[in-house]
Amino acid sequence: MAMQKLDVAILGATGAVGQRFIQLLEGHPWFQVSEVIGSSRSAGKSYSEAVHWVLDGNPPAGIAALTVKALDDEFCSPLVFSALPKEAAMTRELELAAAGHVVCSNASANRMLADVPLMLPEVNAEHIGLIDVQRRRRGWRSGALVANSNCTVMPVVMALKPLVKYGIRRLHLVSEQAVSGAGYPGVSSMDMIDNILPYVPGDEDKMQTESRKMLGAFNGESIDELETVVSATCTRVPVVDGHLVNISVELADQPALSSVIADWERYQAPVPDLPSAPEYPLQYLYQIDRPQPRRDRQAGKGMMTSIGRLRECPVLGYKFAALSHNTIRGAAGCSILNAELMAVAGYIEGFRVADYALAT
Amino acid sequence: MAMQKLDVAILGATGAVGQRFIQLLEGHPWFQVSEVIGSSRSAGKSYSEAVHWVLDGNPPAGIAALTVKALDDEFCSPLVFSALPKEAAMTRELELAAAGHVVCSNASANRMLADVPLMLPEVNAEHIGLIDVQRRRRGWRSGALVANSNCTVMPVVMALKPLVKYGIRRLHLVSEQAVSGAGYPGVSSMDMIDNILPYVPGDEDKMQTESRKMLGAFNGESIDELETVVSATCTRVPVVDGHLVNISVELADQPALSSVIADWERYQAPVPDLPSAPEYPLQYLYQIDRPQPRRDRQAGKGMMTSIGRLRECPVLGYKFAALSHNTIRGAAGCSILNAELMAVAGYIEGFRVADYALAT
Amino acid sequence: MAMQKLDVAILGATGAVGQRFIQLLEGHPWFQVSEVIGSSRSAGKSYSEAVHWVLDGNPPAGIAALTVKALDDEFCSPLVFSALPKEAAMTRELELAAAGHVVCSNASANRMLADVPLMLPEVNAEHIGLIDVQRRRRGWRSGALVANSNCTVMPVVMALKPLVKYGIRRLHLVSEQAVSGAGYPGVSSMDMIDNILPYVPGDEDKMQTESRKMLGAFNGESIDELETVVSATCTRVPVVDGHLVNISVELADQPALSSVIADWERYQAPVPDLPSAPEYPLQYLYQIDRPQPRRDRQAGKGMMTSIGRLRECPVLGYKFAALSHNTIRGAAGCSILNAELMAVAGYIEGFRVADYALAT
Amino acid sequence: MAMQKLDVAILGATGAVGQRFIQLLEGHPWFQVSEVIGSSRSAGKSYSEAVHWVLDGNPPAGIAALTVKALDDEFCSPLVFSALPKEAAMTRELELAAAGHVVCSNASANRMLADVPLMLPEVNAEHIGLIDVQRRRRGWRSGALVANSNCTVMPVVMALKPLVKYGIRRLHLVSEQAVSGAGYPGVSSMDMIDNILPYVPGDEDKMQTESRKMLGAFNGESIDELETVVSATCTRVPVVDGHLVNISVELADQPALSSVIADWERYQAPVPDLPSAPEYPLQYLYQIDRPQPRRDRQAGKGMMTSIGRLRECPVLGYKFAALSHNTIRGAAGCSILNAELMAVAGYIEGFRVADYALAT
Repeated sequence: MAMQKLDVAILGATGAVGQRFIQLLEGHPWFQVSEVIGSSRSAGKSYSEAVHWVLDGNPPAGIAALTVKALDDEFCSPLVFSALPKEAAMTRELELAAAGHVVCSNASANRMLADVPLMLPEVNAEHIGLIDVQRRRRGWRSGALVANSNCTVMPVVMALKPLVKYGIRRLHLVSEQAVSGAGYPGVSSMDMIDNILPYVPGDEDKMQTESRKMLGAFNGESIDELETVVSATCTRVPVVDGHLVNISVELADQPALSSVIADWERYQAPVPDLPSAPEYPLQYLYQIDRPQPRRDRQAGKGMMTSIGRLRECPVLGYKFAALSHNTIRGAAGCSILNAELMAVAGYIEGFRVADYALAT
Repeated sequence: MAMQKLDVAILGATGAVGQRFIQLLEGHPWFQVSEVIGSSRSAGKSYSEAVHWVLDGNPPAGIAALTVKALDDEFCSPLVFSALPKEAAMTRELELAAAGHVVCSNASANRMLADVPLMLPEVNAEHIGLIDVQRRRRGWRSGALVANSNCTVMPVVMALKPLVKYGIRRLHLVSEQAVSGAGYPGVSSMDMIDNILPYVPGDEDKMQTESRKMLGAFNGESIDELETVVSATCTRVPVVDGHLVNISVELADQPALSSVIADWERYQAPVPDLPSAPEYPLQYLYQIDRPQPRRDRQAGKGMMTSIGRLRECPVLGYKFAALSHNTIRGAAGCSILNAELMAVAGYIEGFRVADYALAT
Repeated sequence: MAMQKLDVAILGATGAVGQRFIQLLEGHPWFQVSEVIGSSRSAGKSYSEAVHWVLDGNPPAGIAALTVKALDDEFCSPLVFSALPKEAAMTRELELAAAGHVVCSNASANRMLADVPLMLPEVNAEHIGLIDVQRRRRGWRSGALVANSNCTVMPVVMALKPLVKYGIRRLHLVSEQAVSGAGYPGVSSMDMIDNILPYVPGDEDKMQTESRKMLGAFNGESIDELETVVSATCTRVPVVDGHLVNISVELADQPALSSVIADWERYQAPVPDLPSAPEYPLQYLYQIDRPQPRRDRQAGKGMMTSIGRLRECPVLGYKFAALSHNTIRGAAGCSILNAELMAVAGYIEGFRVADYALAT
Repeated sequence: MAMQKLDVAILGATGAVGQRFIQLLEGHPWFQVSEVIGSSRSAGKSYSEAVHWVLDGNPPAGIAALTVKALDDEFCSPLVFSALPKEAAMTRELELAAAGHVVCSNASANRMLADVPLMLPEVNAEHIGLIDVQRRRRGWRSGALVANSNCTVMPVVMALKPLVKYGIRRLHLVSEQAVSGAGYPGVSSMDMIDNILPYVPGDEDKMQTESRKMLGAFNGESIDELETVVSATCTRVPVVDGHLVNISVELADQPALSSVIADWERYQAPVPDLPSAPEYPLQYLYQIDRPQPRRDRQAGKGMMTSIGRLRECPVLGYKFAALSHNTIRGAAGCSILNAELMAVAGYIEGFRVADYALAT
């Protein structure tokens, strides 16, 4: 028997990542978009009037007619997805969590707060325990704030998680990032025709800090970051979606290349099946010229990370390329996955997943 | 008084690099293109009929009317530029040198032969001494074979040359290469729209071997390669011209970043002024998002290497980006520079530079 | 109860359009790919070895293991899809039809033969009657040859079909075509970065001849072509998939713009539901900057034609833009639709659609 | 003997067209940039601080150090080039002309004023006579306002000028325009990767009105517009510079195609040599796939218009493609050419061209 789905609100609903939330939640088995929140300029308009839709096709009909609310309006959805700009996110996300909402945020503002889990279900589901710490310390009962990482960090931590057991000593990362990572209008076409940019504002720092937190261990009270040295260079290339990272890594152990590939291919997260999770989150591509953004970003409906070109690195030992869809797996899709994990783990008050089929 | 210019022949004249030779030699103060050599399919046609000109505009009028010769025809130009494919180059370049021609080759076929200098006037002009060894060993009197490096190696050795004095221990290179490096038609547009390729056939090996030879020292008899560890990853991006390399380097000494920049800005090769050489071969760009292929590849008429983003690398100590025009500085332009150095140094029989003004 | 699906063979299976056939037939309710036919170079290899897959992801697992046959091998599938190059198609398609196969061809070779229907189910399903003429004249019993139009003609005839009733006097067409129309490797990336090509070999003629045949009437014995004057200019732009045509048209009647839009929005083909047909084949987009190739080509799983910007043309009366996915609706998808119509209409011997659910 | 060059001011100097003015005036034989005017946000900064340089390389050293003035500051340069946005241009250009400056404007604001010549020296140099009318009516003594056309109109009027003698009855235009026409940041890269836009705001109207004014005749008091019917469709493609227009034209006479080509090839403007004018403003390209934006936009240093593909149009009689560099010939370069003509014709008080060599 079909039960009432959980109402969700999207903060920053008219932006590029907000649009992805709406697209990905279309037909979601547990959640339904009931409130869309935009800038004061958009508030009061219908969503279809307010949005300049930049994804394929048009906004889903059911959403197009919703009236956009302002960020300081009241909203009633128990679950809130945040695609806010950094400044707007900083205090508002905490206010909403304090008011009892479960906030799954894609914003960078609060990611590095000590009691906010920076979570990917397949990488560090156990960090969800930090929610108990968060609620205790902050006096929140039903509210919570969970963040996911920067979109460029995503393929790195996905690919490295199965290698943590070998001891990750040093990491050298050079990214080739898609333009959708900068939102819309984002990067000028004058910069992206017959050109690349050797710099992406802010992302190199995030690569170096967020990867250590994500691969760290929850000690019952806080996260012990992974002790490793990270050097990141971030560049922008003329690709719509899909961040590729050239990764070199020094491992304490010396596994055979074939063992590393086997680790990737067998990897499954120690969590229940979640509706948005691919069966296997990683795929290894054996063709020498893969992964490629356009051809591989949609693997697993945009939720798989594709890896290729594993070989010896004369400097650090191992090198390979990893690719994730940056606005699906690397942004909206990951927040949704986090919300699904929160639901399964019983962190969303009044919502029992047991009433639903777990399935794709 | 205007003297007779030296006749030159272009091998592989209808290909993309061959076209660059023709374009760059237009109006050269010392050399004039007198013979164009193509495939058997092109031989006998006029150059304008045989060529599918892929550079801007049209072939120079003076060249358009030349009749294309076949590779095994006789030709009389004392100086020969080779833009041959690898297989064709392998024996024919040696035959022509044996027959008395000075061959300046952009082909990869003979680059790593022990007695063939892999030369850039600004990097290792002293390697020209290897010509004497070559002539002695092979019994050549007036002939010679000089090669220049792969187009992706170029920005690496140009940027590193002033740093050799600090002791280059380890190098980590990730390139983002233009499509013209693969010739015409080369890379399919199906691979280069909304996409990048994480692999460039053959180039990673060349990065690792050629850089060591180029930065090595001539010991009077052979080249002592630079002892350093090199790891290279080569990727292809949707850019017409201009190879950018993200370089991380470990130095034995620990110069200040400002000293390194000063080394680059002051760098001048210890050779006479050559017509195709920029006054300063390196420029450092202080904007945080430079160098960029489209905006910086034409610096110094395509002969300067642009460097930017020098900063600390947590893994290797120093990192930065370097960019060269791959078919000018990285191919045809470099072969021409080598020929100019050969001329100045008296290695082209019967041609006295003293009769010409040095410089444009 | 699931019945045996009809075996189909793909001619030219390793090319770009052949790959689309395979991709689109994955999970088809009636047809299953049983034979893949390639060049003599590919024959004998497994499909996964022989193909350089240029679409997203990898070939379907079931197809990857098939052994590629040569074009002159025998094959047993009653239904054959042809993605052959023109020369190869010319005689082989007729031989196969003579041998009893129903051949649905995307090749241009036999399109303009008087007894070969150039068919789109939504445009001219009644042309299927030409099959009876074809069989009678040629003495074929079960075999048949049906063609679909050039990929650039597709959006033109789709958009014009509902307007034929107004009397189409003159047509002026300027296309902006995707690179996949030229196959793989097809157009060089050197021609498609920071560039467009003002010419597409062969397509202007096809626009002028095929559109008249497709919009013509079947008189029981042959096709009376639509009498209209057509001027076509075909250009190539840096887009992977999706041909956009800027159409100006002079109509004998003078319908209101709103009537024309209503004609498009209400248009449905007078044929039974076919599995690959969208419910409505046309959509009108009201945003002033649509249709756009990347955002609209996937409408209706790539089978809808999107129209926009209808306005007065000072020269011819009406103008608008129309867009179709060129390798789905404009090539493989249309051949499949033709095969579905052949099946429903009883032209495929031994195959009764009644045994299958109609619909996706 | 070198005389003092004429001081010029650039309005809107930090924008994309303003940068082109500065680039093109570098080394100009008559004019030198002495004042740069920007927004209030830029005023008071050095030009190098204020500008985000989007052209190749860096700003010329001599300009980089100039202090940016505000639009309502006083400035003393007798000659003013305007690259202002439309709203800012509307009144300020007239004020400056009233104050005695000769203003050569690339802005659209005042183009269609009855007493403002919309001028291209090679197309309608005789329209300069309208300056006398303008000065008389407005009571200006030394001031004047001259405009040049929209960048997309440029290739149209350049190509059509030699055909006016045949009687231009009807024109059908479909443009494929570069992104630099929209300035910087202008068009989002999200819209220009694997995509085109079928609409360019404002340009279709300009094509239809400005072309008639430019090809019109000066009757001693005003411009008699060319009586012709124009239909324009403007689209945006992923090209940095170079607008291509697919032109179909109906002529009253029926010249042979070869005569039309000869008309183009022989065409020279009936004006004195101007430093920025190419010897022949038009070139006809015989290759079937030309003109192309990247390969042909730089013809004549960006000041020539390239034409190709002349053939019969079944609908209108003649069709062909024409291409101009949109920010050189189509914007800044044309304003400079207008200023040169004003100087030669004695409309710039106190400046005698006779003191200078005519030519580069």
